Amino acid sequence: MAQNNIAVLDTSIADRLPASSKTLFDAKASKGLTFEAIAQALGRSEVAVAALFYGQAAASPEDVTKLSALLGVPEATLRSQLLGFPDRGRAGPMPPVEPLIYRLYEIVQNYGYAYKAVLNEKLGDGIMSAISFSTKVEKETDAQGNNWAVITLRGKWLPFSRF
Amino acid sequence: MAQNNIAVLDTSIADRLPASSKTLFDAKASKGLTFEAIAQALGRSEVAVAALFYGQAAASPEDVTKLSALLGVPEATLRSQLLGFPDRGRAGPMPPVEPLIYRLYEIVQNYGYAYKAVLNEKLGDGIMSAISFSTKVEKETDAQGNNWAVITLRGKWLPFSRF
Amino acid sequence: MAQNNIAVLDTSIADRLPASSKTLFDAKASKGLTFEAIAQALGRSEVAVAALFYGQAAASPEDVTKLSALLGVPEATLRSQLLGFPDRGRAGPMPPVEPLIYRLYEIVQNYGYAYKAVLNEKLGDGIMSAISFSTKVEKETDAQGNNWAVITLRGKWLPFSRF
Amino acid sequence: MAQNNIAVLDTSIADRLPASSKTLFDAKASKGLTFEAIAQALGRSEVAVAALFYGQAAASPEDVTKLSALLGVPEATLRSQLLGFPDRGRAGPMPPVEPLIYRLYEIVQNYGYAYKAVLNEKLGDGIMSAISFSTKVEKETDAQGNNWAVITLRGKWLPFSRF
Amino acid sequence: MAQNNIAVLDTSIADRLPASSKTLFDAKASKGLTFEAIAQALGRSEVAVAALFYGQAAASPEDVTKLSALLGVPEATLRSQLLGFPDRGRAGPMPPVEPLIYRLYEIVQNYGYAYKAVLNEKLGDGIMSAISFSTKVEKETDAQGNNWAVITLRGKWLPFSRF
Amino acid sequence: MAQNNIAVLDTSIADRLPASSKTLFDAKASKGLTFEAIAQALGRSEVAVAALFYGQAAASPEDVTKLSALLGVPEATLRSQLLGFPDRGRAGPMPPVEPLIYRLYEIVQNYGYAYKAVLNEKLGDGIMSAISFSTKVEKETDAQGNNWAVITLRGKWLPFSRF
Amino acid sequence: MAQNNIAVLDTSIADRLPASSKTLFDAKASKGLTFEAIAQALGRSEVAVAALFYGQAAASPEDVTKLSALLGVPEATLRSQLLGFPDRGRAGPMPPVEPLIYRLYEIVQNYGYAYKAVLNEKLGDGIMSAISFSTKVEKETDAQGNNWAVITLRGKWLPFSRF
Amino acid sequence: MAQNNIAVLDTSIADRLPASSKTLFDAKASKGLTFEAIAQALGRSEVAVAALFYGQAAASPEDVTKLSALLGVPEATLRSQLLGFPDRGRAGPMPPVEPLIYRLYEIVQNYGYAYKAVLNEKLGDGIMSAISFSTKVEKETDAQGNNWAVITLRGKWLPFSRF
Amino acid sequence: MAQNNIAVLDTSIADRLPASSKTLFDAKASKGLTFEAIAQALGRSEVAVAALFYGQAAASPEDVTKLSALLGVPEATLRSQLLGFPDRGRAGPMPPVEPLIYRLYEIVQNYGYAYKAVLNEKLGDGIMSAISFSTKVEKETDAQGNNWAVITLRGKWLPFSRF
Amino acid sequence: MAQNNIAVLDTSIADRLPASSKTLFDAKASKGLTFEAIAQALGRSEVAVAALFYGQAAASPEDVTKLSALLGVPEATLRSQLLGFPDRGRAGPMPPVEPLIYRLYEIVQNYGYAYKAVLNEKLGDGIMSAISFSTKVEKETDAQGNNWAVITLRGKWLPFSRF
Repeated sequence: MAQNNIAVLDTSIADRLPASSKTLFDAKASKGLTFEAIAQALGRSEVAVAALFYGQAAASPEDVTKLSALLGVPEATLRSQLLGFPDRGRAGPMPPVEPLIYRLYEIVQNYGYAYKAVLNEKLGDGIMSAISFSTKVEKETDAQGNNWAVITLRGKWLPFSRF
Repeated sequence: MAQNNIAVLDTSIADRLPASSKTLFDAKASKGLTFEAIAQALGRSEVAVAALFYGQAAASPEDVTKLSALLGVPEATLRSQLLGFPDRGRAGPMPPVEPLIYRLYEIVQNYGYAYKAVLNEKLGDGIMSAISFSTKVEKETDAQGNNWAVITLRGKWLPFSRF
Repeated sequence: MAQNNIAVLDTSIADRLPASSKTLFDAKASKGLTFEAIAQALGRSEVAVAALFYGQAAASPEDVTKLSALLGVPEATLRSQLLGFPDRGRAGPMPPVEPLIYRLYEIVQNYGYAYKAVLNEKLGDGIMSAISFSTKVEKETDAQGNNWAVITLRGKWLPFSRF
Repeated sequence: MAQNNIAVLDTSIADRLPASSKTLFDAKASKGLTFEAIAQALGRSEVAVAALFYGQAAASPEDVTKLSALLGVPEATLRSQLLGFPDRGRAGPMPPVEPLIYRLYEIVQNYGYAYKAVLNEKLGDGIMSAISFSTKVEKETDAQGNNWAVITLRGKWLPFSRF
Repeated sequence: MAQNNIAVLDTSIADRLPASSKTLFDAKASKGLTFEAIAQALGRSEVAVAALFYGQAAASPEDVTKLSALLGVPEATLRSQLLGFPDRGRAGPMPPVEPLIYRLYEIVQNYGYAYKAVLNEKLGDGIMSAISFSTKVEKETDAQGNNWAVITLRGKWLPFSRF
Repeated sequence: MAQNNIAVLDTSIADRLPASSKTLFDAKASKGLTFEAIAQALGRSEVAVAALFYGQAAASPEDVTKLSALLGVPEATLRSQLLGFPDRGRAGPMPPVEPLIYRLYEIVQNYGYAYKAVLNEKLGDGIMSAISFSTKVEKETDAQGNNWAVITLRGKWLPFSRF
Repeated sequence: MAQNNIAVLDTSIADRLPASSKTLFDAKASKGLTFEAIAQALGRSEVAVAALFYGQAAASPEDVTKLSALLGVPEATLRSQLLGFPDRGRAGPMPPVEPLIYRLYEIVQNYGYAYKAVLNEKLGDGIMSAISFSTKVEKETDAQGNNWAVITLRGKWLPFSRF
Repeated sequence: MAQNNIAVLDTSIADRLPASSKTLFDAKASKGLTFEAIAQALGRSEVAVAALFYGQAAASPEDVTKLSALLGVPEATLRSQLLGFPDRGRAGPMPPVEPLIYRLYEIVQNYGYAYKAVLNEKLGDGIMSAISFSTKVEKETDAQGNNWAVITLRGKWLPFSRF
Repeated sequence: MAQNNIAVLDTSIADRLPASSKTLFDAKASKGLTFEAIAQALGRSEVAVAALFYGQAAASPEDVTKLSALLGVPEATLRSQLLGFPDRGRAGPMPPVEPLIYRLYEIVQNYGYAYKAVLNEKLGDGIMSAISFSTKVEKETDAQGNNWAVITLRGKWLPFSRF
Repeated sequence: MAQNNIAVLDTSIADRLPASSKTLFDAKASKGLTFEAIAQALGRSEVAVAALFYGQAAASPEDVTKLSALLGVPEATLRSQLLGFPDRGRAGPMPPVEPLIYRLYEIVQNYGYAYKAVLNEKLGDGIMSAISFSTKVEKETDAQGNNWAVITLRGKWLPFSRF
């Protein structure tokens, strides 16, 4: 039965997301499409597509055209709702209350200084960009049949300017 | 000149870390060792070793023996300071104020729901463990000579129990 | 008289819960069903069923079918509202302001380190999972006629990975 | 090797605990005693004893006498440091940053309203006392060899007074 | 003129209270009844009745019948809105911003430890219950014609269990 | 045995209190005096005396003389430490983490609006002063042998000025 | 042109104010009246009248009659909306985000202890009442043509009671 | 007797103030000087002098010379401690916990929007400066013998620039 | 394609902005106008115009007339919505969650004290006004084709008054 | 007289800064050097040098050599204290309490969305880097003799990666 295979938008968080989120998630649910299927159609990563649905990433004109066709939403509707620049960062509270998202936060809390120390030694005084940045999610299954989630973060290294 | 190649402990955060942090970082600075070198000697990941130095990961008895030899700290001192179970999560404030660590936090803030949606669709209702978990940091240099930081998070998938 | 025997949904918190919460609680009130009765029908624990009503636990397809029959809500309605993965953690504020829930919070505040110390000594460096987890509530009456509430938490022990 | 079998006091949290915490934990470490051993000697639960060490529970005169003998700390020292009434609730920050303690907090966050609903239906309008209260920790090993932690909370049911 | 003799519900806080609050306060305003009058009719304390109006205390079936008669609200309406268990603690923000309520908060802030010290010496290690509890408000006028408010808090003493 | 009859100062909170707190509590512990005994000697309420010890109330010159005699602390020491005006409000965190003090806070949280409504109806638009104010603590024992704590708050009623 | 001479109610804060605020501000805008004009008609201070419009001060029956005549709002409407006791303190966030209001907050932040020290020396151990209190705003123009705002706060001195 | 006539520095807040605060307050206490006396000697307002003592205002070279003479502190000591620019705003927590300072905060909370509305109507779109600013404190005694505190705030009006 | 060239208003933040924001942004989107074009028509800086659209800056009568003509919104509508004085500071949360705005916040966090030290040395004890203030944004492209954003802040220097 | 011409380190914030801050500021004060003079000697911007003194920017080996000569601090001391990578962001609290720094924060609060809108329209979907970044401070004096502070922020534009 389909109900636990498709991520949908919890109505109680729709208020803090752009209008496009409801449009996109409703169409996705009605078409029964996974992010994997949509990502393939758009030629983008699944995480990027999910971020676009949550209003955290921009859509190109080609994305809009393809989404319109795939989801059966009039292109004009999508274009007007995806018009403009994403206003990021408001999808959920911080610290996160959702257990899955909290685990990621906890990784930053516990390993933040360790990442900094190792990155500084490897790359100098700077930061890993979260803008010149991509990320992906993979599923692995080990020999014992256990599933593992693998998240990769890849960001450009930006050294602090000397001035 | 060496001074920007070795991560050291900022004295102003030492108070919220265990006594072992000061011991280990002082010895590291005095020996001029990188986390890469120490990780190699311990057969552990660099991030794990840095986490151990910040009091965020446990040391095995073998780690203690090797660290004692490598860092020139009496084994008894290390053993007594590393005695016990790490009391994690107190290395830095949340939200992080350090720009490098903030970027990781921002990734969770912006992409948290996207990760959740994609992971749920791939693996069902559950979480990626931050305990049955490992992580590593790599440096990549692209064709244009730009450096990139790549962080990999790998956690066991834990489905919510039905009860 | 029935009014204090059935837990209902306070309308003023419905906004932060999924649409299914209102549907389920309204039907429960109108049928006059306790969580005990619903749990029995579903073959699940009372706490799990209440959590499902508050949007904090997933329903299986069989749960949906049984709930539809029991509560007199069309299966299609329930299926569409319970479609997707729970977005947990938003039922109430933390620290809790409700006295009953605050007492549980206070137990964590007062005994948290004691639990950690005892669990570490019994089971090593790790955590008790809140995901591979079940919980139940029991009522006991002592010889003097006093009632006692007994809450049991049972979680898989996850040792920190060495990496 | 002993170092990971005995819970000790992280020096960086000693400042927010009473003087007795350092005295007791230092003696415990030096004697290599587990909370199980101490609890047995005192005829109390392990969690209660750990709570006493963290300044979250009171010691009776008999406890003081037995602790003095067991830990090799002069009774006068212990008596003066354990003199008075515990000033509870300051052992760690809330929300907890320690992963093990956070999991307990998360259980309250996710299941708080479910506990309330079920307890109200079973016992009426009231709360489970955290004062007329006891708690214990047990280790279970299932058929597959997995370890499970079981925490039991037992509190007197206090109905709200009608006035 | 009547307008400043009757406490009414500020519409801007109605959203965080149960539906019964609006029903009860509207009827009270329209009948021009004081809490004193309603308390007399119900045989309860004024504070308890006001708490009931704000959703912070439970109504018995007899209360509902009497309120229906007194306020001219259909008993079925009241019963359905007062059905269930109060979800307490959400009437106002903490720290309070209302000057009258802030003064009570300030008393806790300034005298909290003094109360604890005196109560501990008088009654031992425990707490004054806020559940097995009643409270009342009285007006006194001194010889100079000054008015004084007297608030009495009476709670059962709960000693911490030894376990 | 004396140890649980005398309230003492937890060393870990001494830092946020004036120097007089440590002086006074140390002398009280060494003399084994209760607040009841000291209050009797000073002709003041026990709560006022405890507040004075915690730096939350002023001492008159006569109080200083009597305290010096009673506690065996040189009058000059006391005078210099009690010199000046109390800097109130810093004895403990808010919300309180101590269970006893939290219960008082919870009473404000739950009944704050009810107190306001009843006081407004009885006394008009104004507040109960926390400055022109006194408070006392009493112990009652009911017919069943249960102990009850009774706290009385008495404050001058201040009507809002019309301007 | 009138538009910048009349203070109006920002629609986005109306939700946290009583219904009377919208009624009063709408009528004020439509009549083009300044607070100076309204204050003159009511025989009250401008700040008090503005506070009344924001729901932070009570209206007397005479105020209601005069406001009705001046603003052209039916007296019954005003009476019902101004019925009851103000629920103060919710007009804006603290710390203030509005620059003008923030400057007042900053004065408290920077000079708070200085005010306390000087007031204590002049008047003893006590506070300046914010209830037995009036305030006014004046405009001054100096010889160079610069404008200055002068705010006067006048509050009754309340000595702490000795008890 | 002197002890309640001179404002002194609570030792527990000295840590967040500059070194000069302790020097100045210690000398003031030892000389038994009021702020009124010091202000007269310096030709400055009492509040300004108290602010200088709390590290919230700058001293001129002439102030330093006069303070040295008046307080009996070597000029070199004062000069080195008062060297530099004040680092303002850290004297106390916000919201204030001290009752006297809280009343000022409450005035901003309750009347902030009223001040803004009246000032905007009188002076246009702008703010009252807290920098081009002076303030004073006066004591008034009314016909009934009641004391009143009067605080005057006078700040330059800064219109928002049009750009 | 146009959709990413025009900044629009995210519907989910419209609630905390004045009604004029929606009117202005809707018209801007429908006319396809950039802030550059509107700024040129008004003879104002782009940032000032954008601030006006977000309710953070005042419009002059001439601005209203020109905006009406340019955007095709009736002048009466604009006049009534822009009537009154801006209620600033509520456009977004602080700390900012939007990555672009966060970077500005981070600059204040990291360089705040450095700015203060340098400005104090150059200009004395005072502040840079944010009211007598203008700001602009420029785009630069370097020899390698990289784009740079240049933000200039120019504020009047206000020395602290001596009083 | 020199005392207000040289920025020094407030002792009460030294605890949250690296050890180098005290060393550098003490030497600067003793040599009576301005940041302008030090910046000239190092060939860096004044703000960068002040940031280096506050531990917010890295020193190159050449900087260390020059600072040692200029300040009269042994090069080995400086090298060991400046060894390692800055741990940024901890110089002061956010929101800032220092009036000068608060004004910068207020500019972000008030103009943040305006900057974003204008930058997005000029440069697309991205951010202005705070890492590939430089800043400077200038003093201007206008025809009327008023001083103005001009702060320039110049950051590389980073477009969000498409992935």
